[in-house]
Amino acid sequence: MQGWVRTRRDSKDFFFIELNDGSCLRNLQIIAKNLLANYAEVQRLTTGASLIVEGELVASQGKGQSWEVVAEKIDIVGLADDTYPLQKKGHTPEFLREIAHLRPRSNLFGCVFRLRSRLAFAIHKFFQERGFVYVHTPIITGSDCEGAGELFRVTAIDAKNPPRTKDGEIDYARDFFARPTYLTVSGQLEAEAFALSFSKVYTFGPTFRAENSNTSRHANEFWMIEPEMAFCDLNGNMDLAEEIVKYLIVDLRESCPEELELLAKFVDKDLISRLAFVVERAFQRVPYTEAIELLKKSGEKFEFPVEYGLNLQSEHERWLTEKHCKCPGTVFNYPKEIKPFYMRPNDANKTRTPIDLLAPGNGEI
Amino acid sequence: MQGWVRTRRDSKDFFFIELNDGSCLRNLQIIAKNLLANYAEVQRLTTGASLIVEGELVASQGKGQSWEVVAEKIDIVGLADDTYPLQKKGHTPEFLREIAHLRPRSNLFGCVFRLRSRLAFAIHKFFQERGFVYVHTPIITGSDCEGAGELFRVTAIDAKNPPRTKDGEIDYARDFFARPTYLTVSGQLEAEAFALSFSKVYTFGPTFRAENSNTSRHANEFWMIEPEMAFCDLNGNMDLAEEIVKYLIVDLRESCPEELELLAKFVDKDLISRLAFVVERAFQRVPYTEAIELLKKSGEKFEFPVEYGLNLQSEHERWLTEKHCKCPGTVFNYPKEIKPFYMRPNDANKTRTPIDLLAPGNGEI
Repeated sequence: MQGWVRTRRDSKDFFFIELNDGSCLRNLQIIAKNLLANYAEVQRLTTGASLIVEGELVASQGKGQSWEVVAEKIDIVGLADDTYPLQKKGHTPEFLREIAHLRPRSNLFGCVFRLRSRLAFAIHKFFQERGFVYVHTPIITGSDCEGAGELFRVTAIDAKNPPRTKDGEIDYARDFFARPTYLTVSGQLEAEAFALSFSKVYTFGPTFRAENSNTSRHANEFWMIEPEMAFCDLNGNMDLAEEIVKYLIVDLRESCPEELELLAKFVDKDLISRLAFVVERAFQRVPYTEAIELLKKSGEKFEFPVEYGLNLQSEHERWLTEKHCKCPGTVFNYPKEIKPFYMRPNDANKTRTPIDLLAPGNGEI
Repeated sequence: MQGWVRTRRDSKDFFFIELNDGSCLRNLQIIAKNLLANYAEVQRLTTGASLIVEGELVASQGKGQSWEVVAEKIDIVGLADDTYPLQKKGHTPEFLREIAHLRPRSNLFGCVFRLRSRLAFAIHKFFQERGFVYVHTPIITGSDCEGAGELFRVTAIDAKNPPRTKDGEIDYARDFFARPTYLTVSGQLEAEAFALSFSKVYTFGPTFRAENSNTSRHANEFWMIEPEMAFCDLNGNMDLAEEIVKYLIVDLRESCPEELELLAKFVDKDLISRLAFVVERAFQRVPYTEAIELLKKSGEKFEFPVEYGLNLQSEHERWLTEKHCKCPGTVFNYPKEIKPFYMRPNDANKTRTPIDLLAPGNGEI
């Protein structure tokens, strides 16, 4: 066994060490008896120390675990002193943010990162099982996919004394790529071209927005999935979107049940039932126009206005899925005006084809 | 069947269409008879047109394919005219580079991108099967991992009139992240911290170098794998590196045999035998000092000098693996001076622990 000490509890002629190697939430209990050659040293072990333990795995007599290891040898790889910031008590996310190099050792972030890793793999599995080709679209790009003003510029010119043209403008012809370049906001443009060769492709990579929006829904850097399918229509697109959401939840419930339980216990008590809600019920498909009518007739007092031509807000989306549909929902056929130009217009040219999946608690996924 | 016309061959009362949907190298042969309602239209089909075909899959009488489809209905989704640049003849990579949006439809790039997609998935499979946690390390970073002068800067300040301090320096406090930021050259720093929580982690994401080196080994943007393991030593590291190389080759030979055959036929006739060479023989591990001695005694005339303290060049690496070892090789224990400071020194502090895998034809992998 190799890992890091979570806690030490002393008894008469021995003590217990809870050891964790980061592979799962649960610790392995180590019994360290006073027969150990380096017992005096081992007694000084505190939370955070790293060990290599040899011993026998035996059925545990104690409560709380089925197995434990009776140590025959304990190699101390590294000690931790009393400035080690992670202790047995719970820590706030704000405190953990200050020790980003250590926070993956906390139960909370350990679970978050194991879930994220598994989720990433399940995303690849989903698409590869269905014959999609994974494409790495460019990160540095000369294109802007979603409108100006949100891009980070990528440059190798001297910021202090940049090369200039006769007119005093920046001479990007002398920048690294001989033109202005940016961090991508979407791999869609390239993925569309690839879909016209491979029929079904997906991207899964980092994307960037230079938006100074400090909300729970905005990040400057995030990993995004973009499937593109040739010979597909709006219904096929909704089928795929609904299928992957269910697939990923089912996969996580099987692969990471302990991680989900920890999040349910400490972060969001409705998590497990909400995941079941999405998996077990069919998505109900609601055209945007119908969604607006339903919201208007709902009798609810919303904070944001409900009007044809306005975007749906979280409170509207949550009402639709939680109160009205009582199942996950898919809104489609948005007015042309509120969706970007590059999204396919429907045949009457009044609406466009993007879709939004709604889930209780979240609204738009 | 849905796909794009590769070729059309005319016969008396019918013609053959070779249709490809990008899912594999091989085409499906479609028989279009003059009984079709839109036969006149269908007769105008040329390479590049996209079709939806309904019909019966039957055993083929002709040579070159076991199956073919007798079309009952052909929907023409899009026509191609005679300016369509991909024709039946082979095209040079230089020409295909000019039509990047269409080149995935060529046999060569179709194979390259299908292989790349499968390879990416196999990389994830390898690590996930072994309990590694996948971590997404930051792309935008304030750190420099490998030495100055190779970084792209990421910025949102006005290049023409940047904010300046009293001294006339750029005032990065007023840039987006309130400090100078760059595109990452390595996720190693973060991955090392994560390995000290999860024992085994890997990164697999884009990395950037602002190096103006126009060689087959340099790219400004590329996807890199970085495993980090706690409680591991040099031998464990070599085991993993050798294992993944063999694993990926075995996976590709099983998943993409037709793609590899095409590359062997048109790009590198020794490809299949070289892959077998690496899979079937054990890697031989050679300390750097021994490699230098072997090269000095080899009697070969090398273009680049061979001396303790100099890096090995491709020609040296190829001699070691092709002529001397006659198997793939792993060189380790490099002199401290030629490897970066952050690489772990060995115990005598004269050498560092990085390793290089060598394969015939390539030298360093």
